[in-house]
Amino acid sequence: MALHRFVPTTYSNVMATLPPVLTVASGDTIVTTTLDAAGIDHDGVQKAPRGNPMTGPFSVEGAGPGDALIVTIDRMTPNRATGWTYSPLSQQVVDPRTVAELPKSERFEWAIDAGKGKVSLIGGSERMSGWSFPLTPMIGCFGVAPAGGQAISTATSGPYGGNMDYRRFGPGARIAFPVSETGGLFFLGDGHACQGDGEIVGTGIETSFEIEFTLHLRKNAPGRWPRCETATEIITLASGRPLDQPLQFATTEMLRWIVEDLGVDAVEASHLLGQMVRYDVANVFNPAYCVACRLEKTDITRAMSLLGRG
Amino acid sequence: MALHRFVPTTYSNVMATLPPVLTVASGDTIVTTTLDAAGIDHDGVQKAPRGNPMTGPFSVEGAGPGDALIVTIDRMTPNRATGWTYSPLSQQVVDPRTVAELPKSERFEWAIDAGKGKVSLIGGSERMSGWSFPLTPMIGCFGVAPAGGQAISTATSGPYGGNMDYRRFGPGARIAFPVSETGGLFFLGDGHACQGDGEIVGTGIETSFEIEFTLHLRKNAPGRWPRCETATEIITLASGRPLDQPLQFATTEMLRWIVEDLGVDAVEASHLLGQMVRYDVANVFNPAYCVACRLEKTDITRAMSLLGRG
Amino acid sequence: MALHRFVPTTYSNVMATLPPVLTVASGDTIVTTTLDAAGIDHDGVQKAPRGNPMTGPFSVEGAGPGDALIVTIDRMTPNRATGWTYSPLSQQVVDPRTVAELPKSERFEWAIDAGKGKVSLIGGSERMSGWSFPLTPMIGCFGVAPAGGQAISTATSGPYGGNMDYRRFGPGARIAFPVSETGGLFFLGDGHACQGDGEIVGTGIETSFEIEFTLHLRKNAPGRWPRCETATEIITLASGRPLDQPLQFATTEMLRWIVEDLGVDAVEASHLLGQMVRYDVANVFNPAYCVACRLEKTDITRAMSLLGRG
Amino acid sequence: MALHRFVPTTYSNVMATLPPVLTVASGDTIVTTTLDAAGIDHDGVQKAPRGNPMTGPFSVEGAGPGDALIVTIDRMTPNRATGWTYSPLSQQVVDPRTVAELPKSERFEWAIDAGKGKVSLIGGSERMSGWSFPLTPMIGCFGVAPAGGQAISTATSGPYGGNMDYRRFGPGARIAFPVSETGGLFFLGDGHACQGDGEIVGTGIETSFEIEFTLHLRKNAPGRWPRCETATEIITLASGRPLDQPLQFATTEMLRWIVEDLGVDAVEASHLLGQMVRYDVANVFNPAYCVACRLEKTDITRAMSLLGRG
Repeated sequence: MALHRFVPTTYSNVMATLPPVLTVASGDTIVTTTLDAAGIDHDGVQKAPRGNPMTGPFSVEGAGPGDALIVTIDRMTPNRATGWTYSPLSQQVVDPRTVAELPKSERFEWAIDAGKGKVSLIGGSERMSGWSFPLTPMIGCFGVAPAGGQAISTATSGPYGGNMDYRRFGPGARIAFPVSETGGLFFLGDGHACQGDGEIVGTGIETSFEIEFTLHLRKNAPGRWPRCETATEIITLASGRPLDQPLQFATTEMLRWIVEDLGVDAVEASHLLGQMVRYDVANVFNPAYCVACRLEKTDITRAMSLLGRG
Repeated sequence: MALHRFVPTTYSNVMATLPPVLTVASGDTIVTTTLDAAGIDHDGVQKAPRGNPMTGPFSVEGAGPGDALIVTIDRMTPNRATGWTYSPLSQQVVDPRTVAELPKSERFEWAIDAGKGKVSLIGGSERMSGWSFPLTPMIGCFGVAPAGGQAISTATSGPYGGNMDYRRFGPGARIAFPVSETGGLFFLGDGHACQGDGEIVGTGIETSFEIEFTLHLRKNAPGRWPRCETATEIITLASGRPLDQPLQFATTEMLRWIVEDLGVDAVEASHLLGQMVRYDVANVFNPAYCVACRLEKTDITRAMSLLGRG
Repeated sequence: MALHRFVPTTYSNVMATLPPVLTVASGDTIVTTTLDAAGIDHDGVQKAPRGNPMTGPFSVEGAGPGDALIVTIDRMTPNRATGWTYSPLSQQVVDPRTVAELPKSERFEWAIDAGKGKVSLIGGSERMSGWSFPLTPMIGCFGVAPAGGQAISTATSGPYGGNMDYRRFGPGARIAFPVSETGGLFFLGDGHACQGDGEIVGTGIETSFEIEFTLHLRKNAPGRWPRCETATEIITLASGRPLDQPLQFATTEMLRWIVEDLGVDAVEASHLLGQMVRYDVANVFNPAYCVACRLEKTDITRAMSLLGRG
Repeated sequence: MALHRFVPTTYSNVMATLPPVLTVASGDTIVTTTLDAAGIDHDGVQKAPRGNPMTGPFSVEGAGPGDALIVTIDRMTPNRATGWTYSPLSQQVVDPRTVAELPKSERFEWAIDAGKGKVSLIGGSERMSGWSFPLTPMIGCFGVAPAGGQAISTATSGPYGGNMDYRRFGPGARIAFPVSETGGLFFLGDGHACQGDGEIVGTGIETSFEIEFTLHLRKNAPGRWPRCETATEIITLASGRPLDQPLQFATTEMLRWIVEDLGVDAVEASHLLGQMVRYDVANVFNPAYCVACRLEKTDITRAMSLLGRG
């Protein structure tokens, strides 16, 4: 349960079986920094090419195919005072007949006030003066090395994680990724200070972070897609297009989890899901869209756990 | 602002320009009953063919094309002690490669305890004994006569409303439908005692209700899809397939609403939506899927109103 | 086997259970005229509101639910010298990121030279001078009254037919529609002088026609979606969104047809389809997209027939 | 214009920036062999793991980012007497409500008679005896190294090519791929002796081949997706999901090609495409579906050429 402070010097724009930058034991905590989506660090210096450059990969001793690597996001501290977004809405989220009415793409800077827990637009229109939103940090892109020797761009996502851009993957969340390669090889980056559902302007409020996280290994874990546990919820997330597809994959993954951990059958599980399931549209912008399937932690679901029972 | 008690004797399985069963003034309240989705009433008697038979239509004096008919759901009281669902999960919401593993379709009865605010399965497996869910009534299918002399099955939905199966359309919600025909012609039915997101078992807990609702007319209202206001939120909802399409329509409708009511432009609106939007998958089962686009009522959005400003 | 000459005086913009304009016997032939999609006749006079006004419905004696109404398109003669289209490509068929580059919608007239079998743009740019395309008439919108008392806009399509906009539905094609209402109630209109796959500019070359067609009744016919036979092919067509869905429905309908008419099982049918199937994107513009599933007539498929075997 | 005979000894299950197995000049011809999709060679020996192992990559002198690598498929000779497929139809191409009726997955062997140009099932049911299909060879998976240092599984496809499974990519076709890496790095494999549209049983008739092909370099070529020329047609092909998306990408690529090579504008191009375009569903099985957009070679389109004009 060591604490490692890791200062990155290299970054990767693909998630792949790369040499680890650090090897840790299950239960260890790492404090490190991430660049923003454009490769800019806390000093405003471009340290890597744009497109979600990743810090890592971090290897966990003993991790191998069939295991789960569980990352707990302990803390996310924006390490500079500004972030950026684009306007307007993405062409992908408006009625195709209205796309031509969208204004041109424009970049905006936001002030991040970590003390007050707020983000607010810099130099926006007078009509927007006074508009501010809660600081709600999240990791846009993280996960493990994909299977089969692939090297996959950090623009997209899959069973291994990647650019999921899900607003609930922030401090307090614990996310399990299915391991395909020795050591798991955990990458992270693309932090957002705030983001609505769907990442519908194509960005959150993009900035650099200091992030503290803890890695746990669970041997022979059953997940096929990212699973997540928060203080109040159980979540699965999957990728694909159109939205129907990640919804199908995330629902199937939740069904498997329920059957495994509650010991019920598919009929019983369907009663629980049919009445209580919640869906989130994580992103509807990236090459692979992401949908999350959620269940509140209740008397019924309290047995469902990323670290196993007992 | 009269109160009408209306006892239905006829029902319709299409939404269409039919002779009104009752004509009321804007602001009037109606107390009536609805059959369950299979056409069964509070006495267990089949009163209409299955497939969401509607009570109505109710005409509002002065309503015509270009107006909005705004229904406030004042109260929903289940008027019998049981409802029903089907298991298992729909083939449409699981990974196509796992559909063959789904068990056969089966019907289940649920006890509805309005006093305790709970629903619980009758005769479920021992493993499920003690499972109960909150009573959360909602109207599955409602809206106005569609445009152009169409008569559309209550299986599906469109700009006029219809079988949207959205769990937030319950007591306290106020929903505006764009009027196409004289009088608006409001229909309602298909009440659910409980339902998760997506209606992923193909039903909520289907039962009959006594429903109290109030109809308001807003002349020359701008909406093209259903808009909704609750105590805490502003919502648009749209229909289509795949899920990407109703998400596009609902987002565009929300964008229009923001621009109209807040007097901002598309860039400013994109900042608000980009950081704060929420999406719900209303149903992912019916011929037309429905997605809702939501914004919390905040200092920023408090000017957005179904009944206009001032 | 009578020949009826029918001069329409009324038109319908919905397909519905309307009073028949003419009742005929199975095997009878009808010669009538159709308006163009905007309601314009052979004299350039607007006779009905725009949006695919239909000639009909024609009732066939003895037709009822569970039967098939089989229409043979004997002849389509453009009855005026011009048609029209719109430019540019629809927003729905280009990369969403390029929609904003599309020029404004514009209407163009085409000369129709039935003698030479050609269509050519009137007043197009010099660069296009000399561009002409083959005259290849087709019926855009036709079919029978839909089920359940519905009245469905001629903008869209379904199991009953409707606005399918499929270029192979022209002279020589024989199309079977599943009957839902007494008499079948056959409608037709929206003729095109030419159209590519997908109707990707939102129109074919829209014009009015004199059409000769023959109606046959097949009692207790098994089809659930339109089936078609040409001189060289066997075709099924279905509707929905995204394109994946009508492809699924059309493939399933073809699978049923193969199993019925060839007496093979689903494995044997999959060998035939797997190696020999062809798909057409009929339209990718209307509210419901249409995909056709085709098989060449070969020694293997020669037993497949709309009029049954024997 | 040398002729190289290349005997592969290594294979790759990803397309990536790997060391070339052979470097050739533009215009050179290569004769080599490919394994079947399961990694089996002409002697029935497994030489590489299943999942479309590739022969290559072949580097072309002088090729770099922004160029096109044009492969002409000169000849495809099956180098063993059998191939294999699976039954039944894929779950992805039938109505979701009928998936449970599909029989279990089963592997079948086919006899390949290159002399007679036929394939026929071995040991099929009596009902199928005598069923045979034309031998129509095609390359399922080929293309160049993807951009950005990615290594992408040969299960899927993208702008660089990959597992497109398109039946018109056979002898006589000339296909241009956009180059991202030095040398282009051309891979090929996954030959099919026959395949219908869509690859709807998840395979063609999979076998090993001797393939002769010629590589040409075109500097500064404009394509963003694979473009193809056959004796009679001009084709673009793109990847994605649902089918709507590759149709959009392929149509946009064809629009670009028309504008470049015919010197017309988007309105003029839309007249040509609107009346004459054809679409093929290349595959509707792989992680990325593929759609091809085709135009016949006519007086109008004869100027469109992969090797440029002049």
